[in-house]
Amino acid sequence: MGFWKTWFSTPEAVASSRTNSFEEMSAEVVGNSSSNGEGVTPPKETRIVFSTERDIDLYELEELCDAVGWSRRPLRKVKKAIEHSFLVATMWQVRGTQRRLIGFARATSDHAFNATIWDVVVHPDFQAKGLGKALMKYVLKKLRSEEISNVTLFADPHVVDFYRTMGFVADPEGIKGMFWYPQ
Amino acid sequence: MGFWKTWFSTPEAVASSRTNSFEEMSAEVVGNSSSNGEGVTPPKETRIVFSTERDIDLYELEELCDAVGWSRRPLRKVKKAIEHSFLVATMWQVRGTQRRLIGFARATSDHAFNATIWDVVVHPDFQAKGLGKALMKYVLKKLRSEEISNVTLFADPHVVDFYRTMGFVADPEGIKGMFWYPQ
Ligand SMILES: CC(C)(COP(=O)(O)OP(=O)(O)OC[C@H]1O[C@@H](n2cnc3c(N)ncnc32)[C@H](O)[C@@H]1OP(=O)(O)O)[C@@H](O)C(=O)NCCC(=O)NCCS
Ligand SMILES: CC(C)(COP(=O)(O)OP(=O)(O)OC[C@H]1O[C@@H](n2cnc3c(N)ncnc32)[C@H](O)[C@@H]1OP(=O)(O)O)[C@@H](O)C(=O)NCCC(=O)NCCS
Repeated sequence: MGFWKTWFSTPEAVASSRTNSFEEMSAEVVGNSSSNGEGVTPPKETRIVFSTERDIDLYELEELCDAVGWSRRPLRKVKKAIEHSFLVATMWQVRGTQRRLIGFARATSDHAFNATIWDVVVHPDFQAKGLGKALMKYVLKKLRSEEISNVTLFADPHVVDFYRTMGFVADPEGIKGMFWYPQ
Repeated sequence: MGFWKTWFSTPEAVASSRTNSFEEMSAEVVGNSSSNGEGVTPPKETRIVFSTERDIDLYELEELCDAVGWSRRPLRKVKKAIEHSFLVATMWQVRGTQRRLIGFARATSDHAFNATIWDVVVHPDFQAKGLGKALMKYVLKKLRSEEISNVTLFADPHVVDFYRTMGFVADPEGIKGMFWYPQ
């Protein structure tokens, strides 16, 4: 499939893991790296890989969003939103030749000053292992490389602290996030 | 100029004014409407006209932003931001054949679910006459016509009440606007 070709020819892996623990790496780790100097690649080596590839199976994405209890959205609109997002970031568990979508985030932007991050999600099986933070780091790195200076988001109350650990500040200088509801 | 052709062939005027007062109109008012049934069009009739045309003189826009004390931004980036905004709304004072840029707003979006409004400004000479509200109504109408359900913005503390008058709510259900600052 075209997907895998793109994937492995321009790997954007930043993290590698065995079972539960994972290391963040600046080097590319996709390929048959022997993982711990013992010269042996275990058959079930697990890697966490990041991508900005937009060729996402929408049903797989829906499954991921279902897993955290988000209400379903028309796939037609999800497709449109992905096409028109400035950045789409996915996180995959790769074991041998199999891959599983375990994280997602996207950002809208004017391509110049502002970006706004939406729909950050990590599959419950993979939460609380630092992977949400790794995904966000990946997103921020990509946005910075595009010279976006103002990175924003709207955080549900239970994840405000999650974003704080990454350097996000709520209501800086009294700036308020506002949502419009027809009167 | 192409600008005027587009302008008058697809008028999107929603407001008409004489000196200070103005009326919002659902009908198109651009053209030589005799304004109050007396059958006379005064030579200095003033109309306020709205547009989504992106062919904006960047120096005129810079002047408008200067007038409210915003710090200058590289025009190259302003141009890019305008190109990549989902919606660009301008407000003009039209007197005879002259036009003057007196208001501006733009929105980024994923074209499906979310839009975020940025850079809302009304020239000081025209503030506190209801024109900011009219501009925002125009923006909201355009976003709604594109089926955007979630309209958001980040409001400076001194304009939170301005947006409240239009139905914007700060921190609904505890959702927090957050800005990223590199640690
Ligand atoms: C929010 C979410 C993306 C976090 O992903 P994660 O992989 O569990 O987070 P991490 O393990 O990388 O945590 C990173 C840091 O944030 C903290 N953290 C994680 N989730 C948190 C939460 N819900 N509240 C407060 N802190 C949290 C961790 O303790 C960790 O702190 P540390 O760096 O000091 O150790 C994930 O829980 C999720 O997908 N939730 C459901 C969807 C959701 O609510 N998305 C946000 C919508 S606005
Ligand atoms: C904010 C701004 C766009 C408002 O435009 P305006 O044309 O003066 O506003 P309007 O006359 O349409 O006011 C509409 C309503 O908001 C209220 N309002 C206007 N400015 C306000 C302010 N700064 N604070 C509180 N309320 C305000 C008005 O009283 C009016 O209320 P009403 O409908 O109950 O009578 C304009 O003042 C401006 O350009 N300011 C400088 C740039 C700026 O700060 N932009 C916002 C950046 S986040």
